[in-house]
Amino acid sequence: MKRARPAQVLILGGGFAGISAAMELSRKKTAGEVDVHLVNNENYFVFQPLLPEVISCSIEPSHVINPIRQLCKDIHFHYGTVTHIHLRNQTVTVAGPDGKQSHILLFDHLIWALGLIVDLSRIPGMAEHACPLKTLGDAFHLRNRILTRLEEADQEIDEDARRAALTFVVVGGGFSGVEVAGGINDLIKSVLRYYPRARQTGYRVVLAHAGERILNELDASLAGFAEEKLKSRHIEVLLNTTVVEATPGALIFADGASVSAGTIVCTVGNAPNPLVPETALPNRHGRIFADGYLHVQGFERLWAIGDGALVPHPYRDGFCPPTAQYAIRQGTACARNVLAQIREGSLQPFRFGGIGQLALIGRRCGVAQLFGWKISGAVAWFLWRSIYWSKIPGIRTKLRVAIDWAMDALFPRDITMVETQRTSQLRRAHYRAGDVVFRQGEVGDRFFIIVSGEVEIFREEPGHPPQRLGTRSQGESFGELALLKQVPRTATVRCVTPVDVMTMTRVDFLRLVSTHGAMRKLMEDQMSVLAYSDKGS
Amino acid sequence: MKRARPAQVLILGGGFAGISAAMELSRKKTAGEVDVHLVNNENYFVFQPLLPEVISCSIEPSHVINPIRQLCKDIHFHYGTVTHIHLRNQTVTVAGPDGKQSHILLFDHLIWALGLIVDLSRIPGMAEHACPLKTLGDAFHLRNRILTRLEEADQEIDEDARRAALTFVVVGGGFSGVEVAGGINDLIKSVLRYYPRARQTGYRVVLAHAGERILNELDASLAGFAEEKLKSRHIEVLLNTTVVEATPGALIFADGASVSAGTIVCTVGNAPNPLVPETALPNRHGRIFADGYLHVQGFERLWAIGDGALVPHPYRDGFCPPTAQYAIRQGTACARNVLAQIREGSLQPFRFGGIGQLALIGRRCGVAQLFGWKISGAVAWFLWRSIYWSKIPGIRTKLRVAIDWAMDALFPRDITMVETQRTSQLRRAHYRAGDVVFRQGEVGDRFFIIVSGEVEIFREEPGHPPQRLGTRSQGESFGELALLKQVPRTATVRCVTPVDVMTMTRVDFLRLVSTHGAMRKLMEDQMSVLAYSDKGS
Repeated sequence: MKRARPAQVLILGGGFAGISAAMELSRKKTAGEVDVHLVNNENYFVFQPLLPEVISCSIEPSHVINPIRQLCKDIHFHYGTVTHIHLRNQTVTVAGPDGKQSHILLFDHLIWALGLIVDLSRIPGMAEHACPLKTLGDAFHLRNRILTRLEEADQEIDEDARRAALTFVVVGGGFSGVEVAGGINDLIKSVLRYYPRARQTGYRVVLAHAGERILNELDASLAGFAEEKLKSRHIEVLLNTTVVEATPGALIFADGASVSAGTIVCTVGNAPNPLVPETALPNRHGRIFADGYLHVQGFERLWAIGDGALVPHPYRDGFCPPTAQYAIRQGTACARNVLAQIREGSLQPFRFGGIGQLALIGRRCGVAQLFGWKISGAVAWFLWRSIYWSKIPGIRTKLRVAIDWAMDALFPRDITMVETQRTSQLRRAHYRAGDVVFRQGEVGDRFFIIVSGEVEIFREEPGHPPQRLGTRSQGESFGELALLKQVPRTATVRCVTPVDVMTMTRVDFLRLVSTHGAMRKLMEDQMSVLAYSDKGS
Repeated sequence: MKRARPAQVLILGGGFAGISAAMELSRKKTAGEVDVHLVNNENYFVFQPLLPEVISCSIEPSHVINPIRQLCKDIHFHYGTVTHIHLRNQTVTVAGPDGKQSHILLFDHLIWALGLIVDLSRIPGMAEHACPLKTLGDAFHLRNRILTRLEEADQEIDEDARRAALTFVVVGGGFSGVEVAGGINDLIKSVLRYYPRARQTGYRVVLAHAGERILNELDASLAGFAEEKLKSRHIEVLLNTTVVEATPGALIFADGASVSAGTIVCTVGNAPNPLVPETALPNRHGRIFADGYLHVQGFERLWAIGDGALVPHPYRDGFCPPTAQYAIRQGTACARNVLAQIREGSLQPFRFGGIGQLALIGRRCGVAQLFGWKISGAVAWFLWRSIYWSKIPGIRTKLRVAIDWAMDALFPRDITMVETQRTSQLRRAHYRAGDVVFRQGEVGDRFFIIVSGEVEIFREEPGHPPQRLGTRSQGESFGELALLKQVPRTATVRCVTPVDVMTMTRVDFLRLVSTHGAMRKLMEDQMSVLAYSDKGS
């Protein structure tokens, strides 16, 4: 029987799970059988296990990523953010890179490979003052922040302030926390000699963990070894320490103690993807229940894999842990089952017991539990590098990482802080007479204040001439509806004269006016002075 | 005669001129003779000639830079921005990386090696919509922008919009403009195959130049060859074309014609460094007049070198051109003269006639005029790479660039867009009771609105107990003086309770309220709705 059209398989998310499903599908599909689509909000796949090495400056940021378009050649890649999933219609809405346009993708099979997100807002001050560590941008930012602290400390005259600038606290004693603390320690140790005044003061790296021991996933003796190793490298390990508050210069613990620290890294605080409540798929804390075949529980053509899925462990009670090794195998298994179902063949249950656990503690030291063996020290470090290196997709990336490791052995670490920050979010824009600022039906989250010139607003309806609703000129605004919700524009705005506008997004505006009492008063108080200073300048 | 203390030599600026002066000084000085200080607002030196290759993705951003602390080991490096030069007191004020603290450096000799800055504001819309190309951040941003346009075009349904997204205009036909246009063209040509829908539409690269011919610095026949080569690579060259306006989607020319373009790169628009008017040093358009020994005209212990200096050309009328080769030699010559003057020896006039000019037109093609010879094509390209490669400081950077070139020959170009943008400028912060938000005397350009909690404000004077001026609580604000000018804080603010604040910088605030008519009205109109939606969320 010939299929009328290729089956549409849509993968949401380009992490380990999503990418491995996409690669397996493109390997195993026959011509015209399926179209594979993948949506991701970055155009690259991040090899997460190497992020701590980006922070320690031993690998360059761009070397831990792979462009998805080059990695998975035979698929349709959609760069954007999923804003809505309509299960009944079998459609997904994706907002494009410019935020203006959104398009709709149809699916026959939907693979949920979206991970959890980071939410630091549950601890007061944490969202404002701690660095998360989820994306490459986070790693990049943290690396710059550490180096900025060294520059500051080198210029600071006050001894206490210098000590605080040179204190780095990592919250969370899981794999990620331990590896980051080790990475920060390595970095500072190897570059401190370039900061003569900072060196006199010395530095502190503190690992704060809420539990009784670090690396809960590992055997107690290995975790103990790791703790000893961290301590021998002068990393302070605080156990049973719950963080209750963060400020611009300090971290406060449940027992009232505090640490003055210029840098706080937070490796805890996972939260559900906001699409989970919307779709009402069966879930626990935002992780979606899958069955042994990787179907979403109760659904025939929905699949869930990776960190955002709860897959029953095939060999023991409970669920598969949220690690890269499980995500990769789930991706492959899911792709095969999707194809089997399309071909009306028989599905295979997910079978993988894990090969073990590995963690890096710093330069040439690691701990591992592999196939039941416990390994520690330089051997574990070497195993870590070998195993993860073998998993890096793409020859170019493999080569780049190998070169970085070689360079790292030969040269001092790179302490450049590439400042890529652009200017303010309060953007200005300039339009010609006749230009359309936005069009009815486009999605928008910006509103506009006219600095000079005039615009006209009109509504278009099919079969009718455009209906002119009015004009706006200097000092007036338009697009305010966007302040309430990211909705399609209800009218078109066109410039009558050359126009200069100032624009702001909904998020920024809400932040500003959520304290409107102050804002309004301040505006009134300052207006005369500011108006004067404006004229003066 | 023994010197009482080492002479303080202070270099402003870490470009080619400043770095080469610093390196020569540390090579030639004897122990205890001079202390060399260098101030720069980035902690690295940018090898500018390679920026176009960063845009074309054949070299990685971090490979064209060198950390100054590692490059010049025997100097005192100060990371920060020069805010004030006091010639009479022989001091320079430097604002540190956090913007809070500033410190004062004394000098016996001051070397002005600050370049010109970019000011796009003279053409309406240019500052808002064109990408400059001066810093590494600019190159990084432009590279991401080009790739974003490809992603957009691949998703865009409207043919006109897709064509506009795939049009790239470079303004200015000097070396920089020609090299960037060539780089953009190379990049798109080599990666377009990953964007199947964009490929169907095709792309345009346009070079718009105000003069009668491109590459004015070169011989007419070579410039003609370059123009032919650009055209044969399908880059459109528009001569006698003056840009008068830019909008979010188009560039408008003096003759009324326009080009719809998603990306505008501006390589013209140099402006004086803001410190020039303040110091009132002899200058023309912000470039400081130096004499043949590189003294600032009329000053014994002030020196000026590099792009920001007007040094009389030793072999012909006029001044040395603002190129890397002159800057490097001026740096070295200046360093020697400074030492000679300190040692009371005789100074040598600056002697360098230039070795020639080189420009890249794109992959394996260049033009050159060297020692009187004219060279074009692959030979010029090879010469370009050899000569500039030999000038790259530091073995590691040399190696990295060589590896990138080799990788570029072997692998497809890297199309990852690393999004390093952080969130809004409207920052929030959280403080504990007792924390000091800012201290009297610190420099600040932020003001604060209290979201919750209470602060107290007091003034400290030596010999007196702190004088309490009052308190501020929820909905009120403090630090407003910073809105008018970046001045030292006149009081200390300390939290009485835990406090959450929202902060904003002067620049952002002025932008917002400079159209205050709109803002106030909008606030009043929206307040009830927003207050409601706030409570609801």
